[in-house]
Amino acid sequence: MVGGGRDAFIGGVHRIAMRLDGKIDLVAGAFSSSAEKSRLSGEDLLLDPNRVYPDYQTMVDRELQLPVGERIDFVSIVTPNRTHVPVARAFLESGFNVVCDKPLAFNLEEALAFQEVVRKTGKVFALTHNYTGYPMVKEARALVRRGELGHLMKVVVEYPQGWLINPIDEEGQKQAAWRTNPEQAGASSCVGDIGTHAENLTRYITGLEIDEICADFTTFVKGRLLEDDANMLVRFKGGAKGVLYASQISVGEENSLRIRVYGTKASLEWLQESPNDLIVKYVDAPRRIYRCGNGYVGDIAKRFTRIPAGHPEGFLEAFANIYLEAARAIDAEVNGQPVPDDCDFPTVKDGVEGMLFVATAVRSAKGGAVWTKMVNGQK
Amino acid sequence: MVGGGRDAFIGGVHRIAMRLDGKIDLVAGAFSSSAEKSRLSGEDLLLDPNRVYPDYQTMVDRELQLPVGERIDFVSIVTPNRTHVPVARAFLESGFNVVCDKPLAFNLEEALAFQEVVRKTGKVFALTHNYTGYPMVKEARALVRRGELGHLMKVVVEYPQGWLINPIDEEGQKQAAWRTNPEQAGASSCVGDIGTHAENLTRYITGLEIDEICADFTTFVKGRLLEDDANMLVRFKGGAKGVLYASQISVGEENSLRIRVYGTKASLEWLQESPNDLIVKYVDAPRRIYRCGNGYVGDIAKRFTRIPAGHPEGFLEAFANIYLEAARAIDAEVNGQPVPDDCDFPTVKDGVEGMLFVATAVRSAKGGAVWTKMVNGQK
Amino acid sequence: MVGGGRDAFIGGVHRIAMRLDGKIDLVAGAFSSSAEKSRLSGEDLLLDPNRVYPDYQTMVDRELQLPVGERIDFVSIVTPNRTHVPVARAFLESGFNVVCDKPLAFNLEEALAFQEVVRKTGKVFALTHNYTGYPMVKEARALVRRGELGHLMKVVVEYPQGWLINPIDEEGQKQAAWRTNPEQAGASSCVGDIGTHAENLTRYITGLEIDEICADFTTFVKGRLLEDDANMLVRFKGGAKGVLYASQISVGEENSLRIRVYGTKASLEWLQESPNDLIVKYVDAPRRIYRCGNGYVGDIAKRFTRIPAGHPEGFLEAFANIYLEAARAIDAEVNGQPVPDDCDFPTVKDGVEGMLFVATAVRSAKGGAVWTKMVNGQK
Amino acid sequence: MVGGGRDAFIGGVHRIAMRLDGKIDLVAGAFSSSAEKSRLSGEDLLLDPNRVYPDYQTMVDRELQLPVGERIDFVSIVTPNRTHVPVARAFLESGFNVVCDKPLAFNLEEALAFQEVVRKTGKVFALTHNYTGYPMVKEARALVRRGELGHLMKVVVEYPQGWLINPIDEEGQKQAAWRTNPEQAGASSCVGDIGTHAENLTRYITGLEIDEICADFTTFVKGRLLEDDANMLVRFKGGAKGVLYASQISVGEENSLRIRVYGTKASLEWLQESPNDLIVKYVDAPRRIYRCGNGYVGDIAKRFTRIPAGHPEGFLEAFANIYLEAARAIDAEVNGQPVPDDCDFPTVKDGVEGMLFVATAVRSAKGGAVWTKMVNGQK
Repeated sequence: MVGGGRDAFIGGVHRIAMRLDGKIDLVAGAFSSSAEKSRLSGEDLLLDPNRVYPDYQTMVDRELQLPVGERIDFVSIVTPNRTHVPVARAFLESGFNVVCDKPLAFNLEEALAFQEVVRKTGKVFALTHNYTGYPMVKEARALVRRGELGHLMKVVVEYPQGWLINPIDEEGQKQAAWRTNPEQAGASSCVGDIGTHAENLTRYITGLEIDEICADFTTFVKGRLLEDDANMLVRFKGGAKGVLYASQISVGEENSLRIRVYGTKASLEWLQESPNDLIVKYVDAPRRIYRCGNGYVGDIAKRFTRIPAGHPEGFLEAFANIYLEAARAIDAEVNGQPVPDDCDFPTVKDGVEGMLFVATAVRSAKGGAVWTKMVNGQK
Repeated sequence: MVGGGRDAFIGGVHRIAMRLDGKIDLVAGAFSSSAEKSRLSGEDLLLDPNRVYPDYQTMVDRELQLPVGERIDFVSIVTPNRTHVPVARAFLESGFNVVCDKPLAFNLEEALAFQEVVRKTGKVFALTHNYTGYPMVKEARALVRRGELGHLMKVVVEYPQGWLINPIDEEGQKQAAWRTNPEQAGASSCVGDIGTHAENLTRYITGLEIDEICADFTTFVKGRLLEDDANMLVRFKGGAKGVLYASQISVGEENSLRIRVYGTKASLEWLQESPNDLIVKYVDAPRRIYRCGNGYVGDIAKRFTRIPAGHPEGFLEAFANIYLEAARAIDAEVNGQPVPDDCDFPTVKDGVEGMLFVATAVRSAKGGAVWTKMVNGQK
Repeated sequence: MVGGGRDAFIGGVHRIAMRLDGKIDLVAGAFSSSAEKSRLSGEDLLLDPNRVYPDYQTMVDRELQLPVGERIDFVSIVTPNRTHVPVARAFLESGFNVVCDKPLAFNLEEALAFQEVVRKTGKVFALTHNYTGYPMVKEARALVRRGELGHLMKVVVEYPQGWLINPIDEEGQKQAAWRTNPEQAGASSCVGDIGTHAENLTRYITGLEIDEICADFTTFVKGRLLEDDANMLVRFKGGAKGVLYASQISVGEENSLRIRVYGTKASLEWLQESPNDLIVKYVDAPRRIYRCGNGYVGDIAKRFTRIPAGHPEGFLEAFANIYLEAARAIDAEVNGQPVPDDCDFPTVKDGVEGMLFVATAVRSAKGGAVWTKMVNGQK
Repeated sequence: MVGGGRDAFIGGVHRIAMRLDGKIDLVAGAFSSSAEKSRLSGEDLLLDPNRVYPDYQTMVDRELQLPVGERIDFVSIVTPNRTHVPVARAFLESGFNVVCDKPLAFNLEEALAFQEVVRKTGKVFALTHNYTGYPMVKEARALVRRGELGHLMKVVVEYPQGWLINPIDEEGQKQAAWRTNPEQAGASSCVGDIGTHAENLTRYITGLEIDEICADFTTFVKGRLLEDDANMLVRFKGGAKGVLYASQISVGEENSLRIRVYGTKASLEWLQESPNDLIVKYVDAPRRIYRCGNGYVGDIAKRFTRIPAGHPEGFLEAFANIYLEAARAIDAEVNGQPVPDDCDFPTVKDGVEGMLFVATAVRSAKGGAVWTKMVNGQK
């Protein structure tokens, strides 16, 4: 692991997620940009001090010196956005597989260049867009794919949070501080941090590609340098329409990612805070509630469910599902096998799409919320 | 009553609403543009045939011929949008008070001119934006007014329906046919019919004034002449932002008007389909559910509640609340008293605002969903 | 109407319910045991003073003196339990039809004797077990009848309220005072007032007959003479089992009547506070939510629905549905026609069953909560 | 670990729960009564084959032969009820700490004798009544303890499941087969398996002690030897009353453990299937929803929460909370420290209470559902 030292939030989540299913052991790390903090974090984690490194470059070098078979099989990168790509690149180019937190990169250009790196090294690169790890999200995707909803017409996806209503970034709350700092987070705070989840979730479930965006950004909290609220109208290729919004100042909202997808035959609704229910509504039939863990849900949802219906699984299990699939791919790669076709985890392609989405939204917002095509030269 | 003959929907709603509290008797009407249908409708309603008229002009004339005290005190207008203003004008100018279904007029110009008529005649004119009749909507407004939410920053208001997913307007369903016919409904279907409710509800609860709109209209069902889906970004005067959408093709949605208002201290959420709950969320305190009919709700909500908590009141009672308040004003007017200041019903001002909103949204949409100021010369 | 004067609660509900559909006019009444209060209540209601009577016996006599066709068609009785039967008997035996609030009588013996009176007079007698008036309760019954649930095994029905947690009966709250006074209410408060609704609802939906009861009564509030909480185990004829409880001291509960019925193939759940949803759960299929007003609900539910799906109807509309059906029967009776077979309202039989249920529960509770058969000699 | 081999359900849950927080490593086990199956299960789990044992007695002996410090610190027992006590006794008496699945024993006598064993050995014994591991259950308990609800009057606790509606026990489903077999499960199926959770949850939250029970058992599925449904009335010491039921034939219910506790000032409601919400209802104030992970929840709930509000934790995390606390106690014991006073996990006392509850319910049911005191000579 790189990053995730004391006081970090997402690093701890990654550690639980990788450990949950007993397939992955954390054995080495460079947990902080401070060597001392890295050392202390390694102690907290009961790691062999020889494999707790002062920085990521040292980690790459020293792990490479270990005999094949004793080295790490992959690295988890849980640093602020700024360093995702340089760290990932260092490991990939030294022959290690990588799991990386989102968003992929600091900006679109970096993302596009990095996509090439991944391609060239041929290593596994997984991006933890963790919300697609929920079984009922996979069920939703399966319903769309098999035509249960008919032709898709409209998507409403929202991601309100309220945790940044006060200027805690200025008061030293570390999570808030880097996410709202353009030097750490890039050109966007709210859209980069959570809007990308909304975009990724939409694409995963619907398969729709965004054509253009009209994005209205607001910075409600005085002194903050990046937007803390973003409302967007979306036009998808093929004619479907959408509303997408993300917010960090929606007081009282916790982590209320919700998606509704409307087709010609049926619609579906999924809410992250009640993740084990999937609601399907029909033109003229009773609404159905698909509940995780039942015999009637599809094979894909079942594959990512550990316990019976009525025993709620949550955020950590969904996150672990990303690791489970990445581990399957890594296991193949490490053993010289082809990565199985049906591995279901977000890749560098998702990351590039996400960065393109952020860049397009920023461009639209800077123009005064004008319609902006989601295109880049290299695609 | 004018309109509301056999097969009409909203006419029946108005009749129940006016009758519910025992203050209003239906005694006369011109129920259809067909004299025969009007006659038959009068029979259904057990009315004196002498007061069932072949058309509204005859009704005005003949009611005027009755001695003062035997005439109707007011007329309810429940015709398609096209004729709201001409009918209302005829009654007002003959000295009758008017209750009229929304939207106010066929277009903004007509609405503005009509506002003058109301002013000149000095009669009571009530517009049935019925959703503001719900007690918990009134409670929401009271919470905002007394500062419970702090300074308002964001509003998300949505009104999805799915009943027009199939081309029932082409198959002879009367309600659908006139609402999607520009000659009957005006320049907008979805926004005129239900978007105006969303706008009115927002203004009623928050007091915010819309500054500009970016509206993306879509006609999803082939052959339809007006939009059946509209997504909008909204900027309010003073800096608050909003998302507002209305849809008639959101399959499986029934009448799912929902509003969320976010302030600096708290947010609120109200859903028309569960109208007796008002959810308030705080920065760092447990969520509260205000439930209609309890001792702890405010005086205004109590005034519009008939039965104890846990005994659900619904759409018809909310509609009746508009009539109750209009009746209070009309009672004063008829008896030569000043209309009480605290009468709480939508007026011609709400109607003009609504028409301005429709006109602005149509203008924005026609320009390709560009930001458009909500202004008119006469304001 | 007899009873329902100023300060009464249920009288006002009856008046709205009868008026709602425009089939019934209130024209006469004896509204209070105080002649003066009756007179004033008549004024409030804008009635002809000649038809506002000082007591029910005078009302019977004077209405009889009116020419046929000018008399009332039926009387609504909304007095405390003590006087239901004497008042009803007086009207029935003078040839008037009767709608009466529940429970039927002061005790079982009176109920059984009264059943004979109804039989002999041949008049219409309707009892307002209003919860069976909800469309989705009727849908539930239809689902059970057509075998959707399979063979029924278990029923859980609960009716918690909290309004009597404080000794408001001793502090002069009129509704509370008579309901907890054995001289007005009979041998039971909680079971007579709301337990009978639970029993009636169960029988209406399931068709199951109670065989025996084990009832544990408690009076939690000091000084109260009747039980304010009752928990029961139930055994139905044919082997099904049940849990039934009613409570007036369940703090924070409003009017939370809920029933769950479990069969071999499916189960259903209905909650009075969300009356437009009916939840059906299957052995291995997604849950279904039947929502009132949709095309897919059955004919019976549709017959009792006034407005489209998503426009919530509530308690008053359900209550009005009882009146609608009683009116249909009364209309036939008054016009010398046979009462239609499909009239769907609670009758004297429901009332006798309810009183038998109360008597059995009281007997069980007095014996220390022992199993007690639900039988009486006369059945 | 003893038990939990291939095909077992609860063994896998225990393994995830112990692993989740990185404090516990599974290093040895006797996973099945079949030595071969144990061996294969050990392989699945990537364990050192030398520490995968053919039976529990061998495991005790061989682990004892390892040097102190290399032995297991404790054993997890996840076998059917029949063998809980013999296995636990063997480990305790050899100086190992024990975590054991519930119910504690095969019958009450065995439980009482075993309680002495635990006392004498002085080792840590934890029983996985996992539902008390949920943060909001701990919050509920804290609310009761600090008097937020006032004096407690009534408890309604229900635990309906539907998975045994079909005779899957006869069709070879292993989980079902042993739970309904009196030779494996003891004198009760439904009450022993899930009724004890309801009882334990009630005692944990309320602190109330059951005084007497009236229990009506039913075996709905033909051929089954033990009850699959049990309804009970409960009287607590001090005058509170209760309804408690458990069912395995409630079709469509998954794992719907729910508790409602009513006091003189407020009531609370918690539902296992939505475990991150705790609803509190007041006499005359808005309902409050306490949501897990927020700053406003109490210290105890916070201590058992890993991630922020709105990131749902579920069944596995709650289960892991039991292990976390047991591990804290075991860590102290192993290091010769006193077990911290504030360790919050179910102990042998909970197990004995549970067995007494089962025995009392069985006695009541066998007597025809008669009131039966919850007492035993040895207490």
